Amino acid sequence: MHKLINFDHAAATQPLPEVVESMKPYLSELFGNPSSMYAEGQVVKEAIENARQQVAALIGSSPDEIVFTASGSESNNFALKGVAFANRKKGNHIIVSAIEHFSVLQAVKSLQRLGYEVTEIPVDSDGLVDPDDVKKAITEKTTLISVMHANHEIGTIEPIDKIGKIAVEHDILFHTDAVQTTGTIPVNVGALNVDLLSFAGAPFYGPKGSAGLFIKKGTRINPLIDGGIQEGGLRAGTENVMGIVGMGKAAELAVRELQSRMNHVTFLRDRLIASIESQIDDVHLHGHRELRLPNNVNFGFEYIEGESILLFLGTSKIVASSGSACTSRALKASHVLLAIGVSPAVANGTILFTPGIDNAAEDVELLIEKLPAIVSRLRSMSPLYNK
Amino acid sequence: MHKLINFDHAAATQPLPEVVESMKPYLSELFGNPSSMYAEGQVVKEAIENARQQVAALIGSSPDEIVFTASGSESNNFALKGVAFANRKKGNHIIVSAIEHFSVLQAVKSLQRLGYEVTEIPVDSDGLVDPDDVKKAITEKTTLISVMHANHEIGTIEPIDKIGKIAVEHDILFHTDAVQTTGTIPVNVGALNVDLLSFAGAPFYGPKGSAGLFIKKGTRINPLIDGGIQEGGLRAGTENVMGIVGMGKAAELAVRELQSRMNHVTFLRDRLIASIESQIDDVHLHGHRELRLPNNVNFGFEYIEGESILLFLGTSKIVASSGSACTSRALKASHVLLAIGVSPAVANGTILFTPGIDNAAEDVELLIEKLPAIVSRLRSMSPLYNK
Repeated sequence: MHKLINFDHAAATQPLPEVVESMKPYLSELFGNPSSMYAEGQVVKEAIENARQQVAALIGSSPDEIVFTASGSESNNFALKGVAFANRKKGNHIIVSAIEHFSVLQAVKSLQRLGYEVTEIPVDSDGLVDPDDVKKAITEKTTLISVMHANHEIGTIEPIDKIGKIAVEHDILFHTDAVQTTGTIPVNVGALNVDLLSFAGAPFYGPKGSAGLFIKKGTRINPLIDGGIQEGGLRAGTENVMGIVGMGKAAELAVRELQSRMNHVTFLRDRLIASIESQIDDVHLHGHRELRLPNNVNFGFEYIEGESILLFLGTSKIVASSGSACTSRALKASHVLLAIGVSPAVANGTILFTPGIDNAAEDVELLIEKLPAIVSRLRSMSPLYNK
Repeated sequence: MHKLINFDHAAATQPLPEVVESMKPYLSELFGNPSSMYAEGQVVKEAIENARQQVAALIGSSPDEIVFTASGSESNNFALKGVAFANRKKGNHIIVSAIEHFSVLQAVKSLQRLGYEVTEIPVDSDGLVDPDDVKKAITEKTTLISVMHANHEIGTIEPIDKIGKIAVEHDILFHTDAVQTTGTIPVNVGALNVDLLSFAGAPFYGPKGSAGLFIKKGTRINPLIDGGIQEGGLRAGTENVMGIVGMGKAAELAVRELQSRMNHVTFLRDRLIASIESQIDDVHLHGHRELRLPNNVNFGFEYIEGESILLFLGTSKIVASSGSACTSRALKASHVLLAIGVSPAVANGTILFTPGIDNAAEDVELLIEKLPAIVSRLRSMSPLYNK
């Protein structure tokens, strides 16, 4: 039998061989503390600063505008809470979209319990935020707008640059969760008009546990993790050197290969979408058809459970996701799908396929070969299906 | 020339070979997301749960009382802010000692800006907290006491069990920063009477970027990083699997070897202390002589700068520290030394030697051979020294 076919890159990627090689010295031999004055610490410090340059090049920032963190979730919490606390005297109102990642939505819930006010902007049936809705939500108390660059479930790419212009006009800080886009499509903090941008290493084939937050020079923000002088005093704690170095290497590769990677996964995505729509009835592509991540295929299959499809795909060693990995154990209908008006029944019959650079065209062909029969079989067993 | 002699284990340790080996599969092949339902995620999930058991065994807790984090600083911030926010209705008063790690002291400063009240308990000239002082500081509004298990600079071990009893009597939550003690001396959360305990992997020869917080069942605490369902909903973000697995292995080894490691470093410590005191005039051992970490030697050398001693030691490939690694770039006199009554001049002439299990007896002999001459030479150049 063939090896595992991963169509769940949104949940997990295998770090590239060059990334793994770059990390190995920091597993053991190069163990100095980057804050130490002596040579063994300095060589590690330089490796971290080199990674900072590599990551900065990927998003078009200065190296000193990058703070390393341990996850996209930490970056999002840092941005939301850090800005909310640091700008409390200016105001207590935050604007987010309804389809943000849980690490944004739960962070603002925590802030609400501390007296902050939050406006959730709805999205249309494609998952798009209307910049005018953001504009209308602004009050004198608004200190932060946070809208994700692209959605992690339905792949819709938001009009970040336009929202950014509105934020600039109103002198309000603007954060975007770019965990899904950084290293996957072009990301430039200047073009996007953002003050803060979250990213993580794993989506561009870096290691787990590596992530960061872009903070534009001059942005008022408090640390989430107070303490030592690491990361310019903005994030205490001895650095995860290995993870940082690996993410730096992954960023360097992503800069070099971005266009060819996009071409590759876009081809896989479009082949998969076209085949599913032509071969299976009663399916719904979720998310915007054009303004869409090149590696995102999200379909609702009527009358059946997504989990059942995954089980059958698993017997063919194909993995995909029935939602975001963070929530898969919760078994609740996705808040993203509900926000774009999908019925709970179809939401439960939804599968997210996220192809990656390690998928070959044959992987998609195998999936296309298996999927229609699986769906037919499941529907034939479903009391809801009467055709 | 001999290889580097590391007397700065407080800043950095080399992960043990078994630890490095345990991590390698998770660098690349085993890349599944532990929150994924399918087998490739489950095998990673099991590795994390195995590590949780290994760590729990080291501190005498249940595995489900461990939340993995990325640093001791994160654990301290999580404990302090998480308890403060979750128990806000009960009260807004927090008690800490004056010699806590910066990640505790800065975290409570952040809380003060949000309306919390903080009492800093002084310490005696050995760095000991008097439990009676803690008792007297308690008010009706006190929700949390945080006193470190052992100090990271002067090595003094605090009467945590006694303070814990006071906390129990007053129904107040009690946190201890045990980053310096976990895996170095016996640590048992039950015997210490603590509700929360911070630890990190590097001090017991695990990887950087691995740490955790013990949270006793039933403790009211909010996440520091809100979002997904990872770590029982208490710490969002895809897990740093490699780091967690490595810390688990390091914990397993620490349980097995604790006594022999203690014997080894205690021997090195005592030899070093006795030699410095017998061979060099005008030196002061900082910290308690008996209630002391087995791997801590902290001396003030009058009339000279600690940095100069380090430079000369560096030419013999011996590294030590002039303070905690987190603050070494700040070049301020240590708040710990000032709190035990050391003059700023002697604080600036202070060196912290932290031997480890990879130091041989000859390492200490070499240091003892070099140090008196270095000190003499520096003093002969010092305008302060007139003997």
